[in-house]
This record gives sequence, structure tokens and C-alpha cells, in this order.
Amino acid sequence: MHEFELIAQCFSQSGRARTDVPIGVGDDGAVIQVRDGFDLVVTTDTMVEGVHFFPDVDPRALGHKLVAVNVSDLAAMGAEPCWLSLALTLPKVDTPWLQAFAEGLSETADYYNCQLVGGDTTRGPLTLTLSAKGIVPRGKALTRSNAKVGDYIYVTGTLGDAALGLKLVQEQVDVSKKHRAHILQRFHYPTARVAIGQALRNIASSAMDISDGLCGDLPHILARSKVGAIVDVAKIPMSQALKDSCDWQAALQCALSGGEDYELLFTVPENKRGSLEVLLSPYGVPVTCIGRITGAAGKLELRHLDQPFVYQHQGYEHF
Amino acid sequence: MHEFELIAQCFSQSGRARTDVPIGVGDDGAVIQVRDGFDLVVTTDTMVEGVHFFPDVDPRALGHKLVAVNVSDLAAMGAEPCWLSLALTLPKVDTPWLQAFAEGLSETADYYNCQLVGGDTTRGPLTLTLSAKGIVPRGKALTRSNAKVGDYIYVTGTLGDAALGLKLVQEQVDVSKKHRAHILQRFHYPTARVAIGQALRNIASSAMDISDGLCGDLPHILARSKVGAIVDVAKIPMSQALKDSCDWQAALQCALSGGEDYELLFTVPENKRGSLEVLLSPYGVPVTCIGRITGAAGKLELRHLDQPFVYQHQGYEHF
Repeated sequence: MHEFELIAQCFSQSGRARTDVPIGVGDDGAVIQVRDGFDLVVTTDTMVEGVHFFPDVDPRALGHKLVAVNVSDLAAMGAEPCWLSLALTLPKVDTPWLQAFAEGLSETADYYNCQLVGGDTTRGPLTLTLSAKGIVPRGKALTRSNAKVGDYIYVTGTLGDAALGLKLVQEQVDVSKKHRAHILQRFHYPTARVAIGQALRNIASSAMDISDGLCGDLPHILARSKVGAIVDVAKIPMSQALKDSCDWQAALQCALSGGEDYELLFTVPENKRGSLEVLLSPYGVPVTCIGRITGAAGKLELRHLDQPFVYQHQGYEHF
Repeated sequence: MHEFELIAQCFSQSGRARTDVPIGVGDDGAVIQVRDGFDLVVTTDTMVEGVHFFPDVDPRALGHKLVAVNVSDLAAMGAEPCWLSLALTLPKVDTPWLQAFAEGLSETADYYNCQLVGGDTTRGPLTLTLSAKGIVPRGKALTRSNAKVGDYIYVTGTLGDAALGLKLVQEQVDVSKKHRAHILQRFHYPTARVAIGQALRNIASSAMDISDGLCGDLPHILARSKVGAIVDVAKIPMSQALKDSCDWQAALQCALSGGEDYELLFTVPENKRGSLEVLLSPYGVPVTCIGRITGAAGKLELRHLDQPFVYQHQGYEHF
């Protein structure tokens, strides 16, 4: 079999066969029926070997993560995920690797009700680019731009687990047997908060997903919304696994500056806080209020028990 | 200035500011209004340094080509190009290179009335992935699947110029001063046949763009449409520049097996041939009938002056 055909075959059944895709893989492009009255939302994320993942990572986990991080961006905009395009650059055709990667990608695409509709395969250093597309009722997309003074700042789930997972994989920390599986799951198999993103459409004034730590990402909302924020670090939700695995300072650093949690960060006006509790209760995902929006444009003020909290954020620098 | 901001600034004005993009670059994703009653068409193409382009290529030409090859896929589906997403993987931040690349990309995006709506920038070996999105009236996309026995096979423009251009850049051939500029233009600055693709919507039974030579690409239409083809090699349109630069056999090889012409290859039923001439005449691009579709599924038969023509196609193999 021709190697391109082999690659094509690995991905031929990736995700759902959606009825709104009259032409999928195999033509010059894919043809997609976007529902009338809905906006299209498009995201793109690239993962490069040696930069975003280790060469020995389980390819199934990699396939999962590539889908989840893109779908997480759609979730942060309140969109319903629908379609994926994959640009795959491979140094060679390693069939078992490809099959496992394709399986991880397909399972996760299927989980989020997405269909792989096309892409491109080329030879070169291992680089994976996925573009996820979704829909949102017209004008209802959540953005980073509309947080207002006085709004409450929330996060879903717990923060810092993925950063601890990275340290664990790098053998920089030890995690007790009781918590190991949870932490590795959080690092290798992040969950995109799709249902919550959609539930927030008429509640949140702004939203984004946390991929670079709270202190790396909240400033994006502040910049786009031209506001400031006060965050009480004592309120930041952390898992028992994280708290049991390191001291409070180290745990807090994971939560504030660690990447790849893919939890949602969002703001809610005072008069929508009741709706928030009611609408989110069925999902079983905790949401925690960690602070408020202020008028000090661009300023992120950390506090601990009403005292200023000095913290030096060290984010990941690509260049 | 932070280097990511510098990159963002290079691309901040890429292409048109379209009124159907409420949220462009700078949020978790882009939000796009797809016109009601239209289908979305999505294509993705990756270019890798050392595989698809030489390290010393003019970055402006590279930016142009990346847009043109993607838009060409949209053209082949009869779509109107609208929006672009760019995944840029860079080994380092080389500002003059980036600015020239961004200029080439922007100029060409602008030419095709496209807006860059988002993407991702990562560090790694130089890899460029563009995804182009366009629209087509619902159900009117041209595909590779509907060629019928008896249909006439056409190509736009001339074939083989880009292959000659590649040989010229590689110093494998010499081209006279008279023709050099034309041939280099065809190689570095291909034209996507957008207007012709749209004009073919109600005429062509199948269409695709030629990126791997006629003998590499026509079989895709034959496979998807479950038909065969007879092509008269004497009818294949070749530029004066190509004919003057090498002997007939070498010129024919450029046309049959050379890549990157980005001309359209399409089939037209007998009863639409009149409309074809009328509808395409305003565009000033020659279209040439080179053969017919047969019932011999999957078989591409080359002829020369009614005699069988033996030819060994050697396409580009990625792996």
C-alpha cells in the first residue's frame, strides 16, 4: 500500500460522520453546512515535538490532547465543536505510532461530536497543527473583551494539576501512588469544558481557557476589556492531589504560572450570579469565585487574606 | 517589545478587514459570519522548509505562494475565498524575514479579498500551515466525484511552467533571458483561478487544481468519479517559454509530471460546452480541451495523434 494511503486509512474514520459534511476528506477541500443563524468559530493550535511534547509521549495521549486543546478554545467561546482539520508533518511513516495517534485523535473527536473533515500530510520534523471549527448562535460568542468593573471572576475545576503532572513526567517531583493516576490523567488527558462554555453564553461577560496559568492568561482578559482585577490567592481551587504533593507555595506556583489546565476563566456580572449557580449545577464541575474586576486597567493585583501578595509570574517563553 | 507581539504586529493588518468577521485575531478563536444559504469550504496546506521550499527563497514569494496554493484549492471547488488561519512554526524571530513573509502573505490575501482571522505561532523547525476558508452557494461546490463518461476534459492556462521554473532555480536548465521572468513568475507567484472556478459552478461536472502534474492529479478525478480518461498529449497547452526552453519530450514531462502549476483541471458535459465558451471568454485565460472521459474505471490512456503514447509518470513521493 502506498504510504499516503496508509496515513489516509488511519484517519479515514476519525470522529463522527456528521450529516452537515457533504464532502469530507479526499477532495480539494471539505464542504460544510454551517447552520443558518449561527456564527462559525475557528481555532488553530500547533504542537511541535521537543517543544510541546516529549518524543516518547504516548501517541494516543498526544492525539487526545491535540483535539482537547483546540476544542477547549471553542469551549471558551461558548461554541459547539463540530469539525476538525489536521495538518500532519511527519519525519517518517511509523505505522504503530500513527495508528495509536489516530486512535487517540478519533476517540476524542468522537467524544466531542467532531468529524475530521480534511487536512494535509507532509514530510518534515514532527509538527501537528489542528484547526477546530464550531458554531455558536449569531452574536453569542464569548470573548475576552467584555469584562466590566465589579464583575466576579470565576474558574472551573482545579488549577495547577497539569503543571504538577509535567514536573512528575520530568521526574522533578514525586507524587504518592494514591494521586499519581489523577495527576497524569490531568496532564495527558485534559478535558475541554464544552458544556460549561455553552451554558455560560448568556451569563459570562468574558471568558477564555487557561493554557498558560492564571497569571499568564487573566491579563489577556484585562487587556482586551481594558479593566483590572483583584484575585485572592487563598480562593484558588487546588486538588487534594496537588495540595498533598507539595507545599502551599509550590502548589500555588503550579496554579498561578503552570500551563495546560484548560479550565475556563470567566467573569460574571453581579445580577447573573444566581443564574450561574442554577445553570451550572447539573454539570458536576465546581466553579469557584476567585476575585473581582476593577477599574485599574491592565493591573492584576494578587491578595492573600486581604493583604497584598507579592508573586513573580514566570510564564513559558517560546523565543 | 515582546517577540510574540512583534510577530502579531507583522500580521495585524493581513488582508482585508471583512465585515463578516466580528472577532478576528486576539481571542481564543475567530468568529465568522457565514452567509445564510451558503456552504463553507475549508482547505489546508503545509509548506516545510527543505521539502516544499528552499531555505534561501524570497520570504515575500513564500508568503504569496502559501496563500495562492490554498486559495487554488478553494477555486477548484468553485468557492469564493474569504478567511485565512495561519499556523507559523519558526526556529527563531528573524524580523526582516518575518516582515517580508507577512507582506507577501498580506498582499496576496488582499488580492483574493481574504482576511487573516487567526492562527498560532510556535517555536520549531520552519513549517507553514495555512487553512483557507471560503463559501459557495449551498450544494454548488465542484468536486472530483461527478465526471461522467463522454465528458470533455479541460485545463486552464498552460502546464509545465512551474516545473521548468523549479529546474531553473535548481540550475538544472537554462532559460533564455526573454522567458526567464515569465517562468520564475509562474514558479514563485502562481495564480489561483478563482474567477474561473466560480464561473464553472453550473458547467463543470468535476474539477480540481493541478499541483502534482496532470498525470498525478487526473487519476484522482478518475478514482473519485469511477471513470477513465483518454488524453491527447499533443493538445496539452504549453507556453512558448516552455517550448523554447527544452525539447518536446522534456517539455511534455514538465506538463505531465511537474507540480505546482495550480491550473484548473475540469470536465464538462457535451451540452455545456457552448456555455463554457461564453462564460469563460471575459476572463482572458485560455481553456483547452485535452481529452474525454471513458468508462474504463481508473484508467488514464495517453495518446498522440491517435496512437497510444507510452509514458512513465514519476510523481513526487513524500515518504
